[in-house]
Amino acid sequence: MTDTLTLAELNQASPARFIQLLDGLYEHSPWVAEAAWAARPFATLASLKRALAVAVREAGRDRQLALLRAHPELAGKAMVARTLTAESSGEQDRAGLTACTPQEFEQLQRLNADYNARFGFPFILAVRGPRGEGLSRAEIIATFARRLDNHPDFEFAEALRNVHRIAEVRLVEKTGERPEAGNQVWDWAEALAVHSDPGFAEAGQLTVTYLTDAHRACARTLAGWMKEACGFDEVRTDAVGNVVGVYHASDPGARRLLTGSHFDTVRNGGKYDGRLGILVPMACVQALSRAGRRLPFGIEVVAFAEEEGQRYKATFLGSGALVGDFNPAWLAQQDAAGVTLRSAMEQAGLVIEDIPAVRRDAARYLGFVEVHIEQGPVLNALDLPLGVVTSINGSLRYVGEFIGMASHAGTTPMGQRSDAALGAAELALYAERRAAAQPDVVATMGILEVPSGSINVVPGRCRFSLDVRATTDAARDACARDILAELDRICERRGLRHRLEETLRAAAAPSDPAWQARWENAVQALGLPVFRMPSGAGHDAMKLHEIMPQAMLFVRGLNAGISHNPLESITADDAQLAVAAFEHLLAQLAQDTPA
Amino acid sequence: MTDTLTLAELNQASPARFIQLLDGLYEHSPWVAEAAWAARPFATLASLKRALAVAVREAGRDRQLALLRAHPELAGKAMVARTLTAESSGEQDRAGLTACTPQEFEQLQRLNADYNARFGFPFILAVRGPRGEGLSRAEIIATFARRLDNHPDFEFAEALRNVHRIAEVRLVEKTGERPEAGNQVWDWAEALAVHSDPGFAEAGQLTVTYLTDAHRACARTLAGWMKEACGFDEVRTDAVGNVVGVYHASDPGARRLLTGSHFDTVRNGGKYDGRLGILVPMACVQALSRAGRRLPFGIEVVAFAEEEGQRYKATFLGSGALVGDFNPAWLAQQDAAGVTLRSAMEQAGLVIEDIPAVRRDAARYLGFVEVHIEQGPVLNALDLPLGVVTSINGSLRYVGEFIGMASHAGTTPMGQRSDAALGAAELALYAERRAAAQPDVVATMGILEVPSGSINVVPGRCRFSLDVRATTDAARDACARDILAELDRICERRGLRHRLEETLRAAAAPSDPAWQARWENAVQALGLPVFRMPSGAGHDAMKLHEIMPQAMLFVRGLNAGISHNPLESITADDAQLAVAAFEHLLAQLAQDTPA
Repeated sequence: MTDTLTLAELNQASPARFIQLLDGLYEHSPWVAEAAWAARPFATLASLKRALAVAVREAGRDRQLALLRAHPELAGKAMVARTLTAESSGEQDRAGLTACTPQEFEQLQRLNADYNARFGFPFILAVRGPRGEGLSRAEIIATFARRLDNHPDFEFAEALRNVHRIAEVRLVEKTGERPEAGNQVWDWAEALAVHSDPGFAEAGQLTVTYLTDAHRACARTLAGWMKEACGFDEVRTDAVGNVVGVYHASDPGARRLLTGSHFDTVRNGGKYDGRLGILVPMACVQALSRAGRRLPFGIEVVAFAEEEGQRYKATFLGSGALVGDFNPAWLAQQDAAGVTLRSAMEQAGLVIEDIPAVRRDAARYLGFVEVHIEQGPVLNALDLPLGVVTSINGSLRYVGEFIGMASHAGTTPMGQRSDAALGAAELALYAERRAAAQPDVVATMGILEVPSGSINVVPGRCRFSLDVRATTDAARDACARDILAELDRICERRGLRHRLEETLRAAAAPSDPAWQARWENAVQALGLPVFRMPSGAGHDAMKLHEIMPQAMLFVRGLNAGISHNPLESITADDAQLAVAAFEHLLAQLAQDTPA
Repeated sequence: MTDTLTLAELNQASPARFIQLLDGLYEHSPWVAEAAWAARPFATLASLKRALAVAVREAGRDRQLALLRAHPELAGKAMVARTLTAESSGEQDRAGLTACTPQEFEQLQRLNADYNARFGFPFILAVRGPRGEGLSRAEIIATFARRLDNHPDFEFAEALRNVHRIAEVRLVEKTGERPEAGNQVWDWAEALAVHSDPGFAEAGQLTVTYLTDAHRACARTLAGWMKEACGFDEVRTDAVGNVVGVYHASDPGARRLLTGSHFDTVRNGGKYDGRLGILVPMACVQALSRAGRRLPFGIEVVAFAEEEGQRYKATFLGSGALVGDFNPAWLAQQDAAGVTLRSAMEQAGLVIEDIPAVRRDAARYLGFVEVHIEQGPVLNALDLPLGVVTSINGSLRYVGEFIGMASHAGTTPMGQRSDAALGAAELALYAERRAAAQPDVVATMGILEVPSGSINVVPGRCRFSLDVRATTDAARDACARDILAELDRICERRGLRHRLEETLRAAAAPSDPAWQARWENAVQALGLPVFRMPSGAGHDAMKLHEIMPQAMLFVRGLNAGISHNPLESITADDAQLAVAAFEHLLAQLAQDTPA
């Protein structure tokens, strides 16, 4: 590969030439490029990649399986009978797979055999990893072992996703178009993740809770990057510990775009939840600053200090302060070690009296946007890197208990039981049906437990939780109402009683149509289909929603979108698209805003 | 009430006279006696009581409710507006309810108000208790509080059962026919229950596990009663600690009837589980011995030392030894304190080498019978004191786990979930339907748990257990097969995996027809309907089943038949019926057996 492939070349190519230009992207499977040819011209590399993914999606199970089987076993040349393509060979070399220890080799052989026996195709992993730099052998083996447990349908799709990721990395090689901004964002996220709370840091786990040493190190690091690497004009830490960076408009008094997200994490969480929404606009400001460009509006990036409510039950403390929603009663709360919130804030040098001044005057802002990792499987399953949020779901939570009568599992006839667990089972299945019957409504029974259950005792009690979310409060309430009515019917029918407590009620935050449209335009400009979706999780934008228009952009998470987990992951290429989308949104705003 | 009522008088009475004779049995409700009149002549008091219960059962909900409402509030004369009948007044006096402390009085008032509000009738409790001697105020208040939690349908039936129990005690007063043998059995059970293992004795809980001090005290006590109170000819403790009492036939070399049950208990267990089956035949031998009667066959009563498998996992050790089923590998087992079974046996003076000699030669026995408390709700719900066992159910046990994928409860659309708990919910409901579709089959999921479940996480795992029992092994296996097939279908449908382990497989032990018929004849001779039922729980008879014919008689348990629980309870009147049934079985055997 000496010549550099260009989009123009591809757009002008005959089918045969097109296949030749993309040769090596998809292992021994020219039909993928052949099918994508019809989708020319490609506005962007993203739209080419999309066309290739769509070609595979529409090829049917047999050709997909053939594509998977066209890949070599991953374990070093020595054990692979078939000829490796130059690409595969180089990648496996780079991953060090050809230099395994005898134990690793044996482990890989066993995993390969188990995997093939279970799924009927070789284990396929993009060994170059989400940053394109290569996974370690230990990471590869852990991923292998983990994926062996997947359901066959899911693993089939996961293997195809790895095939596309392999192709994406190979396309970077062919075109030389490296995702520089995406790499920057990815590397920042990595560097920020070196700070972790005691007890977690040692285990290699990421935990950054409000105002711990690790948390303050993150704040200092972010402030440093903003000032030195990105060229923000003002960087400060506010009275609740938020890091605020301002990049002025040509007129420093002009209104500002507000953006940002949180940098605290859950216990043993991921590197992108929240942080991505700080780092993506930082990369945009960095580019503006380097180019010496000013926009007709200022950009204010806030790294919110607290969103997760882990150390103190003060969820959204950071963004809440911007809308005047700081509850002084929180100050008396103690963390697990008995330290009050007040004393933690004082020790961090925060001035509690200044908190009311953190409140923003909405008139001075254009609106609020937030980039966030999806934290769900939707984009990943659709092979889409970006999604536009229509609404942050309203949610309702309950904890409850069914109460029946414990009795002997052998001597109590089926007709004479008051089995509390069966009541919970019926309710769980009803909740599933009810939520599934309506788009964008979800209901979950995450806690389900017969306390001290015994194999030979008919359950007398069964604890459960219920979490209901929907894009509008009305849809949420209707769903919850139906489920609670069913709860009563079940108890009546089964001779059970129940206890129920509402523990949370949060209003939905629909995106502002004009701002949502800007994200949609940005996605479209990248050559990607616009995919609209609700946000099932709560975000800082919910708080800003109370005082100004807001809209969010979601970035695909790998590993089925898992979040609040060390497996949370994004590619540098997707981060690059997020930066590009944000830049497009800035450009639209610049056009809309009088200088 | 100075004259003593006789059965003959009742059988000859006109309706009006009949009502008059039974006046006061059912509070302000002569219609109960009126309806029972048609069932004359009554062969026994048991059949009269049955006729009265049937009259109420068939009266319909309105008259039943009126019967309940005809009862005064239980709380002392001072607070009751209506006039108490002489009976009620005397009973409440005897229970000390007219001498409550102000606190107790206030507590009762509150309970009364809550109870009435919840159920719409006054709290009715047979305050004379199961022995007819009166409950303590503390017992009454505890029962009151407990029953407040019952489902309305169940509590309605429980109140009617108390009405019948009140009538039964009043009938004893009227007829002077005290259940002397039943009282003896009841008092023995009470006296035996003073021995309890350390840690439980202090809490007033009954726990007697294999070869503890309490266990050996029970053995000594039983042996003493057998020898001194009952007149057994031989009493010894065998090599596994069973207490064996023999009452010889006229010819001491004649074959013997083998009977008995176990005297060990579960932790915090009941006083009758097992023990009733020792005490009832002891009462029969006592009567024979007092009358100086010998039968053409010997009676060998074995108090089995171990059935529950609590201290060591050696369930049925006691009865197992009689069929040569002692596993020497058990000897190395340690209890929670690290004491091996071998050393426990040696310390108790048991000679391990002699265990093989405990094995019985079936040719020397007529068969095995066992009286046992039902440990289930069936007889109690039917107002029947006795049931004839058709088979001890075969059972199968599994522990397993559904494995799906944990994901965010807000961000994972319903269609993209692999919710392990919903798989378990479906399986639990299927198991219920499948078992209920066939008589005498039960299936139970006693363990159901999402490990570390969180309100906002779609369950990735769900542990469960499955217990399937049926009167025949074939029915048990067919039910289990169907449930496991559904398990596979659920996993396929829901994209889940599962783990499953079979932990127990016990064969069914159908009753020997000739021996079952003897119990049926005995029940019929008592003027009671023959009710046949399987035994859902395992019993010592399962072991003896391996070498000789066996059949069991069940005695009604109060409190919905609860067992393995301090609330396990029987009345002295039911114990009396069990003794009478056993005596009738002895009489039949005497007729069948050549002298």
